[in-house]
Amino acid sequence: MSSNFGTLFRVSTFGESHCKAVGVVIDGCPPGLALTEADIQAQLDRRRPGQSALSTDRQEADQVVILSGTENGRTLGTPIALQVANKDQRPKDYGDMRDIPRPSHADYTYQMKYGIRASSGGGRASARETIGTVAAGAVAAKILKEKCNVEIVAWVSSVGEIDSQAADSQTISRKEVDATLIRCPDQEAALKMEALVTDLKKVGDSVGGVVSCVIRNVPVGLGEPTFEKLEAKLAQAMLAIPATKGFEIGSGFAGSRMRGSAHNDPFVQKDGRLGTATNRSGGIQGGISNGEPITLRIAFKPPATISLPQETVDFAGQEAVLAAKGRHDPCVVPRAVPIVEAMAALVILDMLLRQEARKALLFR
Amino acid sequence: MSSNFGTLFRVSTFGESHCKAVGVVIDGCPPGLALTEADIQAQLDRRRPGQSALSTDRQEADQVVILSGTENGRTLGTPIALQVANKDQRPKDYGDMRDIPRPSHADYTYQMKYGIRASSGGGRASARETIGTVAAGAVAAKILKEKCNVEIVAWVSSVGEIDSQAADSQTISRKEVDATLIRCPDQEAALKMEALVTDLKKVGDSVGGVVSCVIRNVPVGLGEPTFEKLEAKLAQAMLAIPATKGFEIGSGFAGSRMRGSAHNDPFVQKDGRLGTATNRSGGIQGGISNGEPITLRIAFKPPATISLPQETVDFAGQEAVLAAKGRHDPCVVPRAVPIVEAMAALVILDMLLRQEARKALLFR
Amino acid sequence: MSSNFGTLFRVSTFGESHCKAVGVVIDGCPPGLALTEADIQAQLDRRRPGQSALSTDRQEADQVVILSGTENGRTLGTPIALQVANKDQRPKDYGDMRDIPRPSHADYTYQMKYGIRASSGGGRASARETIGTVAAGAVAAKILKEKCNVEIVAWVSSVGEIDSQAADSQTISRKEVDATLIRCPDQEAALKMEALVTDLKKVGDSVGGVVSCVIRNVPVGLGEPTFEKLEAKLAQAMLAIPATKGFEIGSGFAGSRMRGSAHNDPFVQKDGRLGTATNRSGGIQGGISNGEPITLRIAFKPPATISLPQETVDFAGQEAVLAAKGRHDPCVVPRAVPIVEAMAALVILDMLLRQEARKALLFR
Amino acid sequence: MSSNFGTLFRVSTFGESHCKAVGVVIDGCPPGLALTEADIQAQLDRRRPGQSALSTDRQEADQVVILSGTENGRTLGTPIALQVANKDQRPKDYGDMRDIPRPSHADYTYQMKYGIRASSGGGRASARETIGTVAAGAVAAKILKEKCNVEIVAWVSSVGEIDSQAADSQTISRKEVDATLIRCPDQEAALKMEALVTDLKKVGDSVGGVVSCVIRNVPVGLGEPTFEKLEAKLAQAMLAIPATKGFEIGSGFAGSRMRGSAHNDPFVQKDGRLGTATNRSGGIQGGISNGEPITLRIAFKPPATISLPQETVDFAGQEAVLAAKGRHDPCVVPRAVPIVEAMAALVILDMLLRQEARKALLFR
Repeated sequence: MSSNFGTLFRVSTFGESHCKAVGVVIDGCPPGLALTEADIQAQLDRRRPGQSALSTDRQEADQVVILSGTENGRTLGTPIALQVANKDQRPKDYGDMRDIPRPSHADYTYQMKYGIRASSGGGRASARETIGTVAAGAVAAKILKEKCNVEIVAWVSSVGEIDSQAADSQTISRKEVDATLIRCPDQEAALKMEALVTDLKKVGDSVGGVVSCVIRNVPVGLGEPTFEKLEAKLAQAMLAIPATKGFEIGSGFAGSRMRGSAHNDPFVQKDGRLGTATNRSGGIQGGISNGEPITLRIAFKPPATISLPQETVDFAGQEAVLAAKGRHDPCVVPRAVPIVEAMAALVILDMLLRQEARKALLFR
Repeated sequence: MSSNFGTLFRVSTFGESHCKAVGVVIDGCPPGLALTEADIQAQLDRRRPGQSALSTDRQEADQVVILSGTENGRTLGTPIALQVANKDQRPKDYGDMRDIPRPSHADYTYQMKYGIRASSGGGRASARETIGTVAAGAVAAKILKEKCNVEIVAWVSSVGEIDSQAADSQTISRKEVDATLIRCPDQEAALKMEALVTDLKKVGDSVGGVVSCVIRNVPVGLGEPTFEKLEAKLAQAMLAIPATKGFEIGSGFAGSRMRGSAHNDPFVQKDGRLGTATNRSGGIQGGISNGEPITLRIAFKPPATISLPQETVDFAGQEAVLAAKGRHDPCVVPRAVPIVEAMAALVILDMLLRQEARKALLFR
Repeated sequence: MSSNFGTLFRVSTFGESHCKAVGVVIDGCPPGLALTEADIQAQLDRRRPGQSALSTDRQEADQVVILSGTENGRTLGTPIALQVANKDQRPKDYGDMRDIPRPSHADYTYQMKYGIRASSGGGRASARETIGTVAAGAVAAKILKEKCNVEIVAWVSSVGEIDSQAADSQTISRKEVDATLIRCPDQEAALKMEALVTDLKKVGDSVGGVVSCVIRNVPVGLGEPTFEKLEAKLAQAMLAIPATKGFEIGSGFAGSRMRGSAHNDPFVQKDGRLGTATNRSGGIQGGISNGEPITLRIAFKPPATISLPQETVDFAGQEAVLAAKGRHDPCVVPRAVPIVEAMAALVILDMLLRQEARKALLFR
Repeated sequence: MSSNFGTLFRVSTFGESHCKAVGVVIDGCPPGLALTEADIQAQLDRRRPGQSALSTDRQEADQVVILSGTENGRTLGTPIALQVANKDQRPKDYGDMRDIPRPSHADYTYQMKYGIRASSGGGRASARETIGTVAAGAVAAKILKEKCNVEIVAWVSSVGEIDSQAADSQTISRKEVDATLIRCPDQEAALKMEALVTDLKKVGDSVGGVVSCVIRNVPVGLGEPTFEKLEAKLAQAMLAIPATKGFEIGSGFAGSRMRGSAHNDPFVQKDGRLGTATNRSGGIQGGISNGEPITLRIAFKPPATISLPQETVDFAGQEAVLAAKGRHDPCVVPRAVPIVEAMAALVILDMLLRQEARKALLFR
């Protein structure tokens, strides 16, 4: 288990899908920040199950409570414990899965790693594990917004084989993203995506997708080469989200097919600083932010839990057919949007704190 | 700067392209291992510049010396310091670049982050920084091989738009990979790739590519959810390699386009354990190794330093044309192969140690 | 803030004296352990305020709740969140102290460090902060007991100038310790200590003391030289307890006055292993446990909060007289006993896990 | 092994007594600092063996070389590798000790922990291991001096039963300390100490002592409660020095014997800030520096390696008499002075960087 993340803004998450509560402890939050539950709830609402017909039918209000670390609505600089109760659990739905590990889910590997596993709900491999991350990410994002005007916006750019038109990373807003239930700003593509997801939910199948993310107004100089280059920590953070299979920064895999003469981003003067005319670097050069928008793409596989019958074997190795019960998302990407944003915020804020320490003791 | 990596097998690398030496300190190496310079040199030779006409003309023998941590050819369990001298430096080649930051390189971001930068050779953003990683990775790989028969093989699967036939991840060997200078086991594709790289070297341009990697015989149970899932640490490790732009595990971005019913890997019985009939999971489920081969793909951009003239601006914001001198790789992927293997070894060994600690205190 | 401790068994504590709850998240607990609240409550009861006439009059039941990480009374290997509600708060008692920092307390330094501080109750510098540590320590101690029969016993060896007879570190038990309210096994000294504390409580003064601790049955080989030598981590852990001023291992300061010929512990054969005839080393040599009992002494200062009037200055630098209200301990050592035991358990278990990882991959 | 220390200014030391070289890699050094070998050599010279008739006869010049991380005498912000060659080794002296573990030394515990140990010279448990620490500490101290005028002075305050007069912690300087070979500023006591050590060297015995240390001009606000309180990290750092048995901050064990009314440090106004009239707190309150001098005392045991014959048993458990050869210090405290100063510098600088990060993002 490693449920800790960050060096100076450090989060420790906890909770399974079917225990009393899930949450997070944030250590190293800057003091004096105005912070109430409302600052955190908005992103939890975008993540919560049952928010639309496109997601699982599990109903959880996911109301967050601040247990410690604030007084009179201000952070004290001490650990902030955030907690969300688990309420709508149906452990009975998991009866069959006690003996038959779900293909491509974590039942088998958890059992082998720990010699035990939560008997229902996916335990720590459930999407509920991400609540702590989203809550902590909301705090990080608020700090970044107030101190540096950093804006983090993620959206769905593809579902299955349905691709959307490229969004404008300079202008896209959460409002545009939330204009459709599927959270794709290309409304035409969104309609198709929603139709596909609705159809798959009916038949008990699932589908993958891609979430894109832009982080704007990141100060120049963030990222800690060599093992904690900014893209390296972003990659770790994103691949720590359940169901992720791929990560791209800037030009990504497409960039690997190009010539240097076509791929390089020439420098230009912008508002008294150097900027780049193009942004195939995705806002990071040499592992360090260059002031341009940081652009990411994250691939999500189709959810493993489907109700279509699957031929597989049980833990004992005997042939079996599994048709999962339980309430599951046919496609995770709309709910993954705030999770991606949270992870981005956690990485950027931690790197900002580390760079501020360096700047304070720099010799000139 | 964060030149540390790993929790129990922890490496600390050091060195710029034009300082006295580069190297690494390994903390936490298991004691009693037979280890001499020869165990490390082989992978450094596959990484070193000047090894073929396809790479930079800088000539470095890159002979490693063990300074500490062994006695009579056995590790003591104490820190192992490994050092490689820098010899063939040509700081004069970097004259122009003092004033003009190379587009898409790290000159600008290092200057902004640190307020100073190495005046030549790329400093810590040079590929020479990876020597410490490759040396430490060779030690890690030896331990993994001897204790668990883990095999790690990386190869070039595309260069620019030239794709190779898929390799067989169950059987591919370093010998097959090294059969061509470009390190692509598909000999037909390799010829085309080598011709392309040779042409680009002549004209002073560069090209990107993709390195694939398989890690076989990984014990079931490695990976530390949730923030240090196995794929998350692999993603961090790979994106910490210079010039990387993307990472895929298993089905990767292609998996995001599939249905769950087609993507899930059904369980089957294999040699008294559960295996999977297919491996779209890429050997990892729920962040934990499942015993199947771990399959990765890493995208590398075209090297930023090219001798073709580029229109850009200098540090002062004045328009300038840069035609880089210096000796640079037209394509990094052949030399990236041992670096990818090293990073994989560092991640797997650290996770193995952590899981062994858990297993030792497991309650049944 | 650094409320994290441990590498493999990692705890993250949270909570101020006057917030909703205090607690801890334990990351890395071995799976399969039988664990219920009762396993934890016993040590919290020994720590809680109001347990006897010798301590503060604040009344808190300090009932612990396990929020996550267990199912059917067994640990899952996932993070265990433990929580204790704050109930009996009297913020009004702290009115005067808003303007006048208590001499030798943390009011001034917290205000200067964070630019803000909890307006009442000492915030994170309150003894309530130790609840999370004690709760986590109880879990660690249970694992150590079940796996290695490790026994950890702390006791009060002096209060003010009242010294007790040396206890027998081979046999002393918690039962003997708890036979007196002051937790000193020398009953004669205990009576004097209790009388002193009672008198000081009446007059509004306070007094310091020393807690001794023995850790028996520690496996040979624990401790991670050089910066995490076993005594170094124990020293850190103990000096992280509020009000501590000194730490000794084995012969301590008295040992600094001796000759080597008199101080060295000769080896002897014991039950098929090497032991030592004497134990001035305190169970640790070269930073590594040698199998003998580990013996520690920790100095606690007199509590800073006293109701006797003190001439001091307020935050503005104006002369002032402070006579603290609130309910405070006249002497912390009886309640410090379980805290010292908890810290010892956290250090030993983390080191055990790390050594088990090494042993698993040792080459012979 | 844990040869890493520090969060933002992180050192990784390496080297045994009889390998090729010892040294350190510093990660996170602020960029732009003027730094040459001369800045580091002075403290190594105060630490090196053979510096006076009071120490071991082993002769090592201990010349440091900077391998990386600087250019033109300025730090680049990249890892700084520092190396000192081992030269005067006499492995033959260790013949007897192959079979007989030295009482109270690390031979037995290293063998048990690692299953192997350096066959001569104490390996990593030798005092040579501290070279890396002293070198890194010199860099840290230079930064602290230039940025905050922090002054760190350690001295010998007792040797065996010979106590010195209390030094004035406000004024004591390294020059005063170095006025005597034993490094005790009380010249009368120093003469007695030197006579004692000389006598013990002749007869082949050893003696312990106490090193005191003051750290002046530490900014208010350093220290990271709760597990990394300033005194907790100082305690860890000091107990990580070989041969240490005890640690005191401020009033130490003597403080445990006092009443709160006598122990508390009243606040007074000093130069526009709050100071304290007395300093029993030792410059730290609630784990955080309060701007007063930080005062420490560290107990060192008598060196374990003595040439007087000792009755003990060999590794096989057979009775044996050991009369150690080799060249060893009869008393470590004079050479421990720069090591204590180095450890103090490493702790303070790391804490300063962490607090600077907090201050930069503080909300007001």
